[in-house]
Amino acid sequence: MDMSWSGWGDPARAAPLPEPVVGLLRDLLGVRPLDTPPVGLADITVPPSRLTGAARNAITLAVGGAAHVRTDAESRIRHTRGKSTPDLLRIRTGEVSDAPDAVVLPGRHDEVLAVLRTCAEYGVAVVPFGGGTSVVGGLAPQHAGRFVALDLRRMNRLITLDPVSRTATLQPGLRAPQAEALLNEQGFTLGHFPQSYEWASVGGFAAARSSGQASAGYGRFDEMVLCLTVATPEGTLEVGRAPRSAAGPDLRQLVLGSEGAFGVITSVTVRVRPLPETRSYEGWRFASFEAGTAALRRLAQDGPLPTVLRLSDEAETMVGLAKPDSLGSGPRSAGCLAIVGFEGPQIEVADRLFRSHATLREHGGEFLDAGPGESWARGRYTAPYLRDSLLDAGAFVETLETAAFWSGVPTLYESVRTALTTSLTAAGTPPLVMCHISHVYPAGASLYFTVVSAQGADPVAHWAPVKRAANDAIIAAGGTISHHHGVGTDHRDWYAEEIGPLGVKIMRAVKGALDPAGILNPGVLVPPDR
Amino acid sequence: MDMSWSGWGDPARAAPLPEPVVGLLRDLLGVRPLDTPPVGLADITVPPSRLTGAARNAITLAVGGAAHVRTDAESRIRHTRGKSTPDLLRIRTGEVSDAPDAVVLPGRHDEVLAVLRTCAEYGVAVVPFGGGTSVVGGLAPQHAGRFVALDLRRMNRLITLDPVSRTATLQPGLRAPQAEALLNEQGFTLGHFPQSYEWASVGGFAAARSSGQASAGYGRFDEMVLCLTVATPEGTLEVGRAPRSAAGPDLRQLVLGSEGAFGVITSVTVRVRPLPETRSYEGWRFASFEAGTAALRRLAQDGPLPTVLRLSDEAETMVGLAKPDSLGSGPRSAGCLAIVGFEGPQIEVADRLFRSHATLREHGGEFLDAGPGESWARGRYTAPYLRDSLLDAGAFVETLETAAFWSGVPTLYESVRTALTTSLTAAGTPPLVMCHISHVYPAGASLYFTVVSAQGADPVAHWAPVKRAANDAIIAAGGTISHHHGVGTDHRDWYAEEIGPLGVKIMRAVKGALDPAGILNPGVLVPPDR
Repeated sequence: MDMSWSGWGDPARAAPLPEPVVGLLRDLLGVRPLDTPPVGLADITVPPSRLTGAARNAITLAVGGAAHVRTDAESRIRHTRGKSTPDLLRIRTGEVSDAPDAVVLPGRHDEVLAVLRTCAEYGVAVVPFGGGTSVVGGLAPQHAGRFVALDLRRMNRLITLDPVSRTATLQPGLRAPQAEALLNEQGFTLGHFPQSYEWASVGGFAAARSSGQASAGYGRFDEMVLCLTVATPEGTLEVGRAPRSAAGPDLRQLVLGSEGAFGVITSVTVRVRPLPETRSYEGWRFASFEAGTAALRRLAQDGPLPTVLRLSDEAETMVGLAKPDSLGSGPRSAGCLAIVGFEGPQIEVADRLFRSHATLREHGGEFLDAGPGESWARGRYTAPYLRDSLLDAGAFVETLETAAFWSGVPTLYESVRTALTTSLTAAGTPPLVMCHISHVYPAGASLYFTVVSAQGADPVAHWAPVKRAANDAIIAAGGTISHHHGVGTDHRDWYAEEIGPLGVKIMRAVKGALDPAGILNPGVLVPPDR
Repeated sequence: MDMSWSGWGDPARAAPLPEPVVGLLRDLLGVRPLDTPPVGLADITVPPSRLTGAARNAITLAVGGAAHVRTDAESRIRHTRGKSTPDLLRIRTGEVSDAPDAVVLPGRHDEVLAVLRTCAEYGVAVVPFGGGTSVVGGLAPQHAGRFVALDLRRMNRLITLDPVSRTATLQPGLRAPQAEALLNEQGFTLGHFPQSYEWASVGGFAAARSSGQASAGYGRFDEMVLCLTVATPEGTLEVGRAPRSAAGPDLRQLVLGSEGAFGVITSVTVRVRPLPETRSYEGWRFASFEAGTAALRRLAQDGPLPTVLRLSDEAETMVGLAKPDSLGSGPRSAGCLAIVGFEGPQIEVADRLFRSHATLREHGGEFLDAGPGESWARGRYTAPYLRDSLLDAGAFVETLETAAFWSGVPTLYESVRTALTTSLTAAGTPPLVMCHISHVYPAGASLYFTVVSAQGADPVAHWAPVKRAANDAIIAAGGTISHHHGVGTDHRDWYAEEIGPLGVKIMRAVKGALDPAGILNPGVLVPPDR
């Protein structure tokens, strides 16, 4: 099934907001119904494809036939940009000026190689396309001229599973649920469950350094990756011969997070684990974000580390966003809700649960019951659907995220909240800003912000300076410009600040070595050399 | 105190081999006493220093005075090459043709920057020098022309300790025991205890991706590193703003393992942990290396993971090398000795110990007692001293190591053993080859080989083809050319095979960006572009 072309996920699952929420948005934030309905898919006109003649013939040959090179309007619209709120707002107006000139569907590593060689020769840019779930402009090349979306969906096999080493080699076009089903059949799990789980692809996880909601227990995706095969215009790069090595820099970590700018990942070997025997998700309440943060830090540093560990701030707890499936029902909650989940062998889960309770209580945590935890687990993939409903109801909603060392987390939290609140208020649309910690490490944690306000007259233009203010605040407070969404085009200028001039020089040098013609995702990640 | 110029460590701790061991070496391997005694330090003539005139003046200015630019013979000899067996054999004959032209001792980051800029301008190569413990030719530049050793010993401060984030920022010239003492004062430990612990430096750990004997519990050094500051001829690179990030590739992992070829690490921020409350090291016996390996794999994959976990094969167990402090005493042991050590809070150590016993027994492990564990812990840093004694007694002894995924470990083990045995036997000096697993991961493990034989007439030349055969065997069996010793010049050609032509192209591109004049450790790590 294809994802909604103008929103998130399965169109059949779209649902209007509960009435109480609509009322709240109106009364609190001044959200008004939209004047103009979104356009229909059939009403959109795409610019004529510039992929013609010899270039088109050569690419067709590279992928073994015309069936794998699509230039129809619907295919091109469905591969236009990603799923950030500005992306959705733009496509809902029918704005598809940067639709790809064609969608190319390779079936094998050497077809990818052949496409890249051909595109380098003909000066056609290439945007690798997995699940299409980028929220940072990762699918929106800049100054690319003609370009194709390289959709990897045909490369969707489990290549090998090594039960002794507990590793699996996967093709990049596997969507996460497909990969999980193939592994589950043999008793294993990847344990990677980001919010984009239902639609995102294995290759995308690697290219964008995805981090799942169970990262405390299973690790981030970049921590699971053991080997990578990458097709580049200059040939094939294979990295990873052992779990760890002292043979030079870890080149896997140069491919991970390269966002299609260095090459196309054509296979990923990951660590897999036995399916958990049992799972238990609980809800805990803390009096303040500060108290809850201290508890999370303690668990991250001294253990026992839960599999899932999240803490909503007061605003997010009040709105009930931590439990999307019960949004708009019942009274609002006070304090800060934490979700503490364990998965694993029964006896081990029981032990970790028991020991975590002592730590949570010691930090003032109040045990709620399994309700909020299970509610969160049921609703864990629904937030993007909720965004569609909010946009439909005339609200503006977007998320952004960062990470820092523990000692820097309070300042980062305040800085970003202030930047969002101040700039949206100044623009005449005072927002509700909510935040949660969803990924913890011994040395620090991530912060994930959700901001809701009324839409401005031109919501995309309205948001742009706010986003810049938030990004500036992140960098000024010492945070990283992204903990798990990535860089894309949206964060590129702040990424350049984050890594500094020499970091940028390194990135350009690597890109120059692998992609001398500069055809791979131009303008994404690597700041152009102006 | 300075390390022995022609051997390992503190000259006062050198000790002759026990008589039974000398007898065994003679009877088993045909080892005969040496004909010629090693030369004395005072008898060695170094070639005249080529660092003169304007270049010398400029470098002197960069480090704030002549006291920090040494060209005396002893300083230059003490910075000649590293501590591999061929290094020691060569220097013991007085062969110092590749002594540095000067030893330069910067005191601050900007002095390092100034030295690098100056050296780039004057075409003087620079070899960063920490503890001087490289065993892979990492301090032996090739085709360098005139070069200086950049000794970082003056940069030996603990810059900051953040008890909230549990991180410490250390200068690179701190030797491990100094760093540990500074952290211990404040109740923390780094937990990094490689065999080179007593002499190696923090900067060296980072540059060479060191892995400590307690890596199962505390992680490898590269896993502890959170931020790095690097001085390069092109300026300063700072990487790491959060424990983890999705902002592009992890550039920390490009600096880690760069072996001084990309820049000089001038500060390292690492994760630190509270000093362990208690520790317990035990000995276990397995009937075979295979059975023991299965037990280690089980602990690495399903836990509880010990802090220290090692398994000697039959040969190493028989010789008693796992317990260097009791070498040559008592009857030899059968089977395979495993060391299983736990450190941490008392209640947690007790629990992990208890649960590990069940797993070890299940795999046929026989509990010995605390004796072998404690004996190993006492002798954990003595093996390099033992090597000196063996060399003095006329034996040849060297170590090499690799890693692979678990399913590849048996083949890798057999291949390397066969390569060493076959090639040394063919050369007329049948060896004793011993091996242990000392670092485990969920997906694989390291293999560490020790080989002892009689010395050939020219022991350096005698060993060269044997080492090549071992390296070829490692690459052919799919292992990595080094798990924790690094690449240096000795492994460079096999490293190039490991990362392939595109990997080499990336390495050259990064080096070109940071060190366009090619002055940094020429010939180390990065294959020259011929």
